[in-house]
Amino acid sequence: MLNYKLIIQYDGTRYKGWQKQKNTETTIQGKIEGVLTRLLNQEISINGSGRTDAGVHALAQVANFHFDETLANISSYSPCQVKDALNSYLPNDIRILSCEEVNPRFHARLNAKSKIYEYRIDNTEIGNIFERKYLTRIEKALNTDKMIEASKYFIGTHDFKSFSTNTHIKKSTIRTIYDIKIVNKDGIISMEFFGNGFLYNMVRIISGMLIDVGLGKYSPDVIPELLKAKDRTKVGGIAPASGLFLVKVNY
Amino acid sequence: MLNYKLIIQYDGTRYKGWQKQKNTETTIQGKIEGVLTRLLNQEISINGSGRTDAGVHALAQVANFHFDETLANISSYSPCQVKDALNSYLPNDIRILSCEEVNPRFHARLNAKSKIYEYRIDNTEIGNIFERKYLTRIEKALNTDKMIEASKYFIGTHDFKSFSTNTHIKKSTIRTIYDIKIVNKDGIISMEFFGNGFLYNMVRIISGMLIDVGLGKYSPDVIPELLKAKDRTKVGGIAPASGLFLVKVNY
Repeated sequence: MLNYKLIIQYDGTRYKGWQKQKNTETTIQGKIEGVLTRLLNQEISINGSGRTDAGVHALAQVANFHFDETLANISSYSPCQVKDALNSYLPNDIRILSCEEVNPRFHARLNAKSKIYEYRIDNTEIGNIFERKYLTRIEKALNTDKMIEASKYFIGTHDFKSFSTNTHIKKSTIRTIYDIKIVNKDGIISMEFFGNGFLYNMVRIISGMLIDVGLGKYSPDVIPELLKAKDRTKVGGIAPASGLFLVKVNY
Repeated sequence: MLNYKLIIQYDGTRYKGWQKQKNTETTIQGKIEGVLTRLLNQEISINGSGRTDAGVHALAQVANFHFDETLANISSYSPCQVKDALNSYLPNDIRILSCEEVNPRFHARLNAKSKIYEYRIDNTEIGNIFERKYLTRIEKALNTDKMIEASKYFIGTHDFKSFSTNTHIKKSTIRTIYDIKIVNKDGIISMEFFGNGFLYNMVRIISGMLIDVGLGKYSPDVIPELLKAKDRTKVGGIAPASGLFLVKVNY
């Protein structure tokens, strides 16, 4: 058995997210597994570093998969051959940036140490045309200073229950955010989140809150109370998926 | 009567080009005239600096239109109000970058002195995902040095009949290209054409020829003969519209 690690870039616009679902092929994981299964002549399951929601993009998602090289149709598949074959057969909105053989015990999700996500907002006066599918359009001027002030309250180790969509009631909702960088460059606002892990919808709910602060709907200093409340219903909406990128997974 | 000049940016992907056609609204000109006609309460015709084909984009197309300010619904429409109203009512793949009042005799096509077009090619190893709709994908490695060598033969005043789609048999096909800049940046190749005017399909036919030279299908030194032949049938295909941008119109 060999273990290969993939670095994957995708435009999530037309997919129902990363995770394979029954009766559908329109997930990133489903597309890649489909090609690998045909290519390597055996059922392949890939482990992503984490799920991305429907419509979310990735600059460098990481995944790994094991396969039995004796079952493959040709005598051997080098990482380079696997990469080239995947890029030939995958649609042009999913690209394999690299493929390498790794230690048999490497697991893309379990070994992930930290992640970087970026949320991108178009706050220009007239709107950006050519990147519009990768930006969330906010027409009203955002107060970036207030957003930066609010972002500081999220940094550190907190229970993010108020800022996530609850799925597994028993699992810990404590995470550490090491840093949030907010930069406004000519009206294109980038919010970069660096943390040890992120709960379901967490980046989009925090982004939604920061946008609301930027619009003046909330004062930055409400954040500590909202964190303390551990109650999702106290917090506003989820920012749209199209502005979100998984940027990097660190091991 | 007032004369307003517009600078317009668009993603041409879903349009049948600039020029209004009968029985269809899916042209850039048609969309803009439709909004202006309703806004200013009179039939408006806009003069573009030139047509762009179906699928071609513009960073800064220029157009002008005359209107009778006494017929408008409100007492006056300042250029700023016209710009804001257009950006409110136009789809988000057409944006008005500026609107200003100009001399009544200014005409966007007749007064244009020169233009810059850019043709963009994705010649990276694995393909660019996020700009794929604005790049022509060429997988085989292009020899940019040969393309630059070939491009030199087009610079100057020539009869470009071989490199255009003939529409008006009697019109002159002589044009001057002042410069062609070809830059390869990490596999994204930009070809910038600066000239006093361009014939129908001329940039795309020259781009197609330069790509063929880059692929080794033609030697650069065939260009002078092809220009001399004044025969479209001697020259290869038209490069796809999606890689072409109208960058600037000079007056």
